[in-house]
Amino acid sequence: MPQNHLIVLDSRPQGEASTANFKLVAADTPPLQDGQVLVRHHYLSLDPYMRGRMNEGKSYAQPQPLGAVMIGGTVGEVVESRHPRFAPGDKVVGMGGWQEYSVADANQPGLLRKVDTTHVPLSHYLGAVGMPGVTAWYGLCKIIDPQPGQTVVVSAASGAVGSAVGALAKARGARAVGIAGGADKCRYVTEELGFDACIDYKAHPDAASLGKALKQACPQGIDGYFENVGGRILDAVMLRMNAFGRIAMCGMIAGYDGQPIPMAYPQLILVSRLRVEGFIVSEHMEVWPEALQELGKLVGSGALRPRESVAQGLAAAPEAFLGLLKGHNFGKQLVKLV
Amino acid sequence: MPQNHLIVLDSRPQGEASTANFKLVAADTPPLQDGQVLVRHHYLSLDPYMRGRMNEGKSYAQPQPLGAVMIGGTVGEVVESRHPRFAPGDKVVGMGGWQEYSVADANQPGLLRKVDTTHVPLSHYLGAVGMPGVTAWYGLCKIIDPQPGQTVVVSAASGAVGSAVGALAKARGARAVGIAGGADKCRYVTEELGFDACIDYKAHPDAASLGKALKQACPQGIDGYFENVGGRILDAVMLRMNAFGRIAMCGMIAGYDGQPIPMAYPQLILVSRLRVEGFIVSEHMEVWPEALQELGKLVGSGALRPRESVAQGLAAAPEAFLGLLKGHNFGKQLVKLV
Repeated sequence: MPQNHLIVLDSRPQGEASTANFKLVAADTPPLQDGQVLVRHHYLSLDPYMRGRMNEGKSYAQPQPLGAVMIGGTVGEVVESRHPRFAPGDKVVGMGGWQEYSVADANQPGLLRKVDTTHVPLSHYLGAVGMPGVTAWYGLCKIIDPQPGQTVVVSAASGAVGSAVGALAKARGARAVGIAGGADKCRYVTEELGFDACIDYKAHPDAASLGKALKQACPQGIDGYFENVGGRILDAVMLRMNAFGRIAMCGMIAGYDGQPIPMAYPQLILVSRLRVEGFIVSEHMEVWPEALQELGKLVGSGALRPRESVAQGLAAAPEAFLGLLKGHNFGKQLVKLV
Repeated sequence: MPQNHLIVLDSRPQGEASTANFKLVAADTPPLQDGQVLVRHHYLSLDPYMRGRMNEGKSYAQPQPLGAVMIGGTVGEVVESRHPRFAPGDKVVGMGGWQEYSVADANQPGLLRKVDTTHVPLSHYLGAVGMPGVTAWYGLCKIIDPQPGQTVVVSAASGAVGSAVGALAKARGARAVGIAGGADKCRYVTEELGFDACIDYKAHPDAASLGKALKQACPQGIDGYFENVGGRILDAVMLRMNAFGRIAMCGMIAGYDGQPIPMAYPQLILVSRLRVEGFIVSEHMEVWPEALQELGKLVGSGALRPRESVAQGLAAAPEAFLGLLKGHNFGKQLVKLV
């Protein structure tokens, strides 16, 4: 069996996470049992939700255990199989974690899924045609449900989720407005992703200026907001929401390190009759087939052109992950493992 | 025509409202036009939403114009009619405002409604079997939608809306837990209204103590919250909400004077996958018949025993209204005008 390398959570962050919280270790891959499959990972996905798992205490999921391999989505190739539905050479997506190889119980439904790389590159199954894409689809279609001509705003617009939100909103005839950090990202959001406008929040450090930029980009107000960050951006958007607006709460990256991120104007939920709803895509497995089909078509047709930031080698994962939390990535953050 | 007295908004509050914002004036009632009805008001309803109308600026409704009679629900008796469907002696409910008489255009749909006082006292059409009752019904049935055995919490539980929320929740097999100010109100909520428990927020001035009281009163967590006040009570409840909980945002009395009332933990909307929804009952006229029917039955059967605070005479209205905003009332606040 091949030699494996893996990254475990070595300690929990006190406030901001750091590379010292992770440890890279070597281990043998165990011999396969009946029904098991050995996968060599080509790419590891890095996602903001992982930061939440590093904390102890109440969250929607169990905290990541100390000393165990970090959780994470992976795509790769079957190298050995003791399951009749999988053969060496099959391309698969799964939750292999921060490691080079993983052993999956292929009898467990949904744990390992074969994918077709004819029209969609393998790595996109971790992004636009994977969990982040379905996240965008659920929040946009099931919570925001934009009508033609309505305005949808999404924060972290150049990211894996945000870019898909924009493409899905445009496909429904809505006006798509992004919020992103820096002129480069904003240019990508409007020119390559086809958003109608994008606001560089770094150019608007105060509430008045950010509010003015939103007013300019959303002259008819905001009907749907897809929230990935929280904090002052949420406050500014809420002040511009139209009556009966919908807010899909997908992430609040601003609060992952434990700093307070109060919502300044909750009375606007009443005044503007808003619906604010949190969700976790893994609790809505029933939408995955429909969502993946639409997302695959958007990527295949070029209507959604996802961008990737690729770190090289497992050892680079912690640094890349911390950069993702600070918005240093540009598009979907991956780690290439082969 | 009889001599009328009315109260107009004389100035807008700077911060807290005061009696100086109101002015009592005398005026003749105008002669009736075809289709009009002259109503002598028996009771005027005082409701927290009126405070919002006194402010200038964005709210869900137009601000109350300066110099115009204060808006308000009224019940009374037709004393003169130039409309075939109304005759002197008819008991009616309408939006007559803070005055002793009003002239209503009976052709305008929904403006004036005849009511039957055989089983339901006239004043209750301003409370449990009126706008506050329907408000409770909409938020509870359409937003919280409690399942048997689930726990529903309501703030301002002894008030016109809160008491109806409790009765409607119990009728659906849910556990009803109130929050109210003072031992007397809490006793009324449990002993007369039949709530399973009631928390006196005045006895729990700090977050830890209020949280502990909620934990004790809601051992299975909270599935639905009907919000009438906002501020620290909302924060404490959110920390105890179960996954997939629903919060109906009906009022935020804590913020009416313009003081900031941030929501401390918006990330809980995501972590606990909550749905938080604001609403205004006048935008959902389609539910009124069904709601009024159920509320009338609950009052008729004694399952809902609304309590009233009655101020005497129009001149007492401003003082009674300011007391309502501070929670000095006990049950539905009315002004008796005859």
